[in-house]
Amino acid sequence: MATKDLLEAFRAVTGPAGVVDAPDAMAGYLTDWTGRWTGQAIAVLRPDGTDQVAALLGLCHRHGVAVTTQGGNTGIAGGATPIPDRDHVVLSLDRMQRILAIDPAARTATVQAGTVLQTLQEAVADHGLTYPLMFGARGSCTIGGTLATNAGGSNVLRYGTARALCLGVEAVLADGTAISDLQGLRKDNTGYDLRDLLIGSEGTLAVITAAVLRLHPAPVAVTTGFLSLSGPEAALGVLNALQDATGGLVEAFEYMPAPLIDRICAHTGARPPLAAPAPTGILLEAASTRPSDRDAGGLEDLVQDCLAGLMERGLVLDAVIAASGQQRRDLWAMREATAESIMAVDGYIFDLSLPLSQIAPFLQVTDAEVARAGMTALTVGHLGDGNLHYSIAPGGGAALGALRARILDRVAAMGGSFSAEHGIGQDKLDLMAAYRDPARLAAMRALRRAMDPAGILNPGKTIPDAP
Amino acid sequence: MATKDLLEAFRAVTGPAGVVDAPDAMAGYLTDWTGRWTGQAIAVLRPDGTDQVAALLGLCHRHGVAVTTQGGNTGIAGGATPIPDRDHVVLSLDRMQRILAIDPAARTATVQAGTVLQTLQEAVADHGLTYPLMFGARGSCTIGGTLATNAGGSNVLRYGTARALCLGVEAVLADGTAISDLQGLRKDNTGYDLRDLLIGSEGTLAVITAAVLRLHPAPVAVTTGFLSLSGPEAALGVLNALQDATGGLVEAFEYMPAPLIDRICAHTGARPPLAAPAPTGILLEAASTRPSDRDAGGLEDLVQDCLAGLMERGLVLDAVIAASGQQRRDLWAMREATAESIMAVDGYIFDLSLPLSQIAPFLQVTDAEVARAGMTALTVGHLGDGNLHYSIAPGGGAALGALRARILDRVAAMGGSFSAEHGIGQDKLDLMAAYRDPARLAAMRALRRAMDPAGILNPGKTIPDAP
Repeated sequence: MATKDLLEAFRAVTGPAGVVDAPDAMAGYLTDWTGRWTGQAIAVLRPDGTDQVAALLGLCHRHGVAVTTQGGNTGIAGGATPIPDRDHVVLSLDRMQRILAIDPAARTATVQAGTVLQTLQEAVADHGLTYPLMFGARGSCTIGGTLATNAGGSNVLRYGTARALCLGVEAVLADGTAISDLQGLRKDNTGYDLRDLLIGSEGTLAVITAAVLRLHPAPVAVTTGFLSLSGPEAALGVLNALQDATGGLVEAFEYMPAPLIDRICAHTGARPPLAAPAPTGILLEAASTRPSDRDAGGLEDLVQDCLAGLMERGLVLDAVIAASGQQRRDLWAMREATAESIMAVDGYIFDLSLPLSQIAPFLQVTDAEVARAGMTALTVGHLGDGNLHYSIAPGGGAALGALRARILDRVAAMGGSFSAEHGIGQDKLDLMAAYRDPARLAAMRALRRAMDPAGILNPGKTIPDAP
Repeated sequence: MATKDLLEAFRAVTGPAGVVDAPDAMAGYLTDWTGRWTGQAIAVLRPDGTDQVAALLGLCHRHGVAVTTQGGNTGIAGGATPIPDRDHVVLSLDRMQRILAIDPAARTATVQAGTVLQTLQEAVADHGLTYPLMFGARGSCTIGGTLATNAGGSNVLRYGTARALCLGVEAVLADGTAISDLQGLRKDNTGYDLRDLLIGSEGTLAVITAAVLRLHPAPVAVTTGFLSLSGPEAALGVLNALQDATGGLVEAFEYMPAPLIDRICAHTGARPPLAAPAPTGILLEAASTRPSDRDAGGLEDLVQDCLAGLMERGLVLDAVIAASGQQRRDLWAMREATAESIMAVDGYIFDLSLPLSQIAPFLQVTDAEVARAGMTALTVGHLGDGNLHYSIAPGGGAALGALRARILDRVAAMGGSFSAEHGIGQDKLDLMAAYRDPARLAAMRALRRAMDPAGILNPGKTIPDAP
């Protein structure tokens, strides 16, 4: 079918507002947020409802048009930007932002996939509840995007990734058939887990159009602090001691070593949280929903007493606990300024995960290696999850290439992963081919063919072609 | 290949101890635990190691021999018993029971799939840790079986099902290729989630040979009690109030209404937990890992104070809290005697789940309907998970058939599931065909063909054939 006729068929589904084909109007959808990737498309489709998504996918399936689904366009792996070498449509869910239901008793929310994360969080806060997924892009990323990438962030330690927070999805399959599982059942073992297969598949197996999400009670007591540890090898013991003392209430345990704190302070003008630099600095947050934890003997005392014991044992060298909401916000403002502070000096940011026992050996060897190469390690990490956004500045030079390869080889040798939470997209296809078991990749290709025999869903992403 | 030659080839892989073909020795593997299903097999294969599993599956794949994998043979849906109308081998993992590693700092255990659940629980208890999956068969079921069925039980409210407790699996694919993901990574987004696809697939997509599991600290304070509520419509509010008061420490919230308590007492000679019968009885357990929760103002006081408030509001009519370990064990002994007490009067046990908001309306309508039919409802349920093992006695009569159909229709109309945690196996293929969306079933069939093109893995189970 000629492009003109195809656009007419799309418009017949969505009305004129749902099909954008003017180059200026399309531009924002065709380049990713980082500016690293630009693709091309015959149109941007903006359906208003699952029925329209189904009808549009049915058309694309029959006519062999590739479909790249896009949420808030905040990804950093190029997953939501079409590849430039094939005719595409971008399927934007930016008109599907309705919160369909909030059930305070069952503690669930049902939302369309285009709903912005922060919008949902504000809506459930009115019910004393929280949707705890927390990371920098929350003001513009969408629920569908967080599911497509199985997003993580700084609360995974307590609440899990996006997958753990989702009870069910509605999705449209490649041929335009809709399937729905929005009842919010806690237990349902009726065949294969299509939900978890779609979550994290980056739009290559289906288009998620809605989801029912697990809410948690909002904390009533929060203790936030900054710790200086004796070294990275002390970190896991300190985390476990704090978990044991509080009964598992640690929500964030973020690695922010001295070079990173220096960089953030230089970039933002903030003051370091501790007088002496903390080579192994940790941003700690614990939170409780137990009302009596606001009182004496409650959460803050438990954390303080535990830290005192850890200081006596020499595992914690120094610590400050935020004494006000402002101090707490200041600590988190430093954490949230991390990415821009690293990017301001052209830093290269990895997205590594390691077995918890390998974190300290990895940091020791790699920090020394980076220093020998005359560069600076500006690592930030979700340490309790084994997830290091190991970063090197400057990242643009020729020296980075060989260093990067050695670091990735080390991660693989230590049983780690080169992709913890930022996704594969277009960015890491080469690493999938280099580091993932060919048998596992072959199984993934077979699953993809099974779900999308015509190969229209987000081609050129996530799973590398067979060699 | 002739059966005799095939058996020789199997023996060349495993040695003589790994191939059982004497009818007497095979019998225990060919009939399920309930005695409802009996299959046939040319041999029971008992490999000792993943390499042997891989070699055996490779042989079966090349020669078109069907393979039914079996763990502890404790399932109640016939999933681990071969169908009688095709030549099979049973692949028993009962020689693969090694605990490969326990990492107390990372709080993980790595085990072979044949490891008995209780054996693992006892091994990790030595480290002050718990693997919290909890149900009646734990003394004989295997970790592989709990993963293949995504088992639940009475602690799901707090810890999730088997899926939520698994960080990664090693598995052998249908063609004999092994894939492994035993590093225990908390975050790893490198393509599709094969782990969650295999979990719950009842041995139809691959054979799980080992797993790395998430451990939790063992509780230091436990409060167990029995409540009489004003009615099922009060249950969700009472559960949420207890969760709010304790900061989310409720582990079990088990529905045990008066007719069930009467039945158990008649069967076991136990005394009812409360003097007056509790039409809406609840077995409650909360547990904390916070050391100070053993003290005054700790967990028991939080629960008692909350219950006092709920009694003032008329939501809880009566309550008893176990004052000793013996009283606690007596309460759980009643819960654990439920299945045999129901089966002793030929009760029919459903495995339903419902949206939490539908539990009370469902019980009200269905209990009245069962009473009108002159039968007795002996329901037990994991109420916090929306999972009702609704039961009817006597279950053998002709009247059950129509009643069962009406109940299943009602569950479907209310957005529930006919299979919460017991699996599909051979037992519920008809319900899959009747109640599950054809588009969803078609996707599952396509995934199955992708993973097992020759159709050798557990044929006749889990996913009904296309109509």
